[in-house]
Amino acid sequence: MPTPADPLASVRIVLVATSHPGNIGAAARAMLTMGLRRMVLVDPRRFPDAEAVALASGAADVLDRAQVVGTLDDALSGCAYTVGLSARPREFAGRVHAVRQAAHEAVAHTAFGDVAFVFGTEMSGLSNDELAKCSAIATIPANPGYASLNLAAAVQVAAYELRLAAGDGDVWRAPRFEPATFDEIEALYAHGTRTLADMRFLDPQMPRRLLPRLRRLFARAGVEKEEASILRGILARIDQVLERER
Amino acid sequence: MPTPADPLASVRIVLVATSHPGNIGAAARAMLTMGLRRMVLVDPRRFPDAEAVALASGAADVLDRAQVVGTLDDALSGCAYTVGLSARPREFAGRVHAVRQAAHEAVAHTAFGDVAFVFGTEMSGLSNDELAKCSAIATIPANPGYASLNLAAAVQVAAYELRLAAGDGDVWRAPRFEPATFDEIEALYAHGTRTLADMRFLDPQMPRRLLPRLRRLFARAGVEKEEASILRGILARIDQVLERER
Repeated sequence: MPTPADPLASVRIVLVATSHPGNIGAAARAMLTMGLRRMVLVDPRRFPDAEAVALASGAADVLDRAQVVGTLDDALSGCAYTVGLSARPREFAGRVHAVRQAAHEAVAHTAFGDVAFVFGTEMSGLSNDELAKCSAIATIPANPGYASLNLAAAVQVAAYELRLAAGDGDVWRAPRFEPATFDEIEALYAHGTRTLADMRFLDPQMPRRLLPRLRRLFARAGVEKEEASILRGILARIDQVLERER
Repeated sequence: MPTPADPLASVRIVLVATSHPGNIGAAARAMLTMGLRRMVLVDPRRFPDAEAVALASGAADVLDRAQVVGTLDDALSGCAYTVGLSARPREFAGRVHAVRQAAHEAVAHTAFGDVAFVFGTEMSGLSNDELAKCSAIATIPANPGYASLNLAAAVQVAAYELRLAAGDGDVWRAPRFEPATFDEIEALYAHGTRTLADMRFLDPQMPRRLLPRLRRLFARAGVEKEEASILRGILARIDQVLERER
């Protein structure tokens, strides 16, 4: 089965027994920045709450639509794949994915229905019983001496990986300015070589490493049409000065 | 040149003109979770500040060692590679990396000296002049309708990518329990096939898809020695029941 057109619409972010409403709000903001909109709250201590709305910033809509349920089973009902986040995966005998891999698996499973990423309490995370209900356990690679990601920070990283797994990793853009053509670039090098030789900066019989280095520099930059024209202008000016000298 | 043993020790996180000290504290926490310790603050509005310490949680040490400087030039002095984060890369004509690519480039450049990731103000990010000082511009792929990552959330994602680029993406662990040997697993299948045939669940002349499916299931799970022994026990019990029936 193919994955849906927007796999992120099939992702539930499940927060279990969150203590601080501010964290729920910050998690909503983190979700929406990555295009996730479906929050499920299992037995939150305080919700709805003004602090959640304050921290949600522009993402109050995610809070308004959040589903509040009594048990983790209710939150995961109907899911084709569920991922429990844990900072202490060494305690478990099962296989543990890095969150990047888990995000890819989750997006692949959207072909079969909803998927869920499950986050435990601020103090102690998910219990072993809660993790045992999940299809997979995922961890966010972290400093072993201080792996204490804030709840919303963990949601941010997971949501970011879900967005990339769903295909938005590519920030390539069409050039905004017209690039110089092959011929313009070759004409630039030919002119430059001539001028450098006239300046006696370059011995045309022994160009050595200079020209290849210049080529490499400009190739990395990707010369635009207007820039090629500016460089030709500079060379022409040098030519005039050299001409006057003679 | 090779990269240093701990490339993350060469990474500066530079925050320019941050308004809220709480964000500085939360950024310090985000940094330390990923093993980054070198914070540079350019002209912060309020620092040091109790709110920064509160939000830093266990990462107050990063704040204590933070360097406060007057200008972005001071912050970037001596760097071999600098990355300016921007949420609006479409405004720039230059090349823009996704933060993942930028993190790889930055780690590669630690072979030549310090590298910096630069974050602008909460309200407006980095100015065009500030971005022009950077070796590269990076963006965090985000929901185009709401790309408003909190400052500390942006630092968290960048720090996470730096940690992975530096090599900590691998959460594979040695099995905690002794796996079943090849022979134990084959004996299990042989026993299971016999018992299923005795139960007339399986026609040994026409096993069809059943046995391959069972093999696939257990292979995915990775059977442990003790589990193989438990399964053999269950089969033996079924054998006894079938024996009594005869």
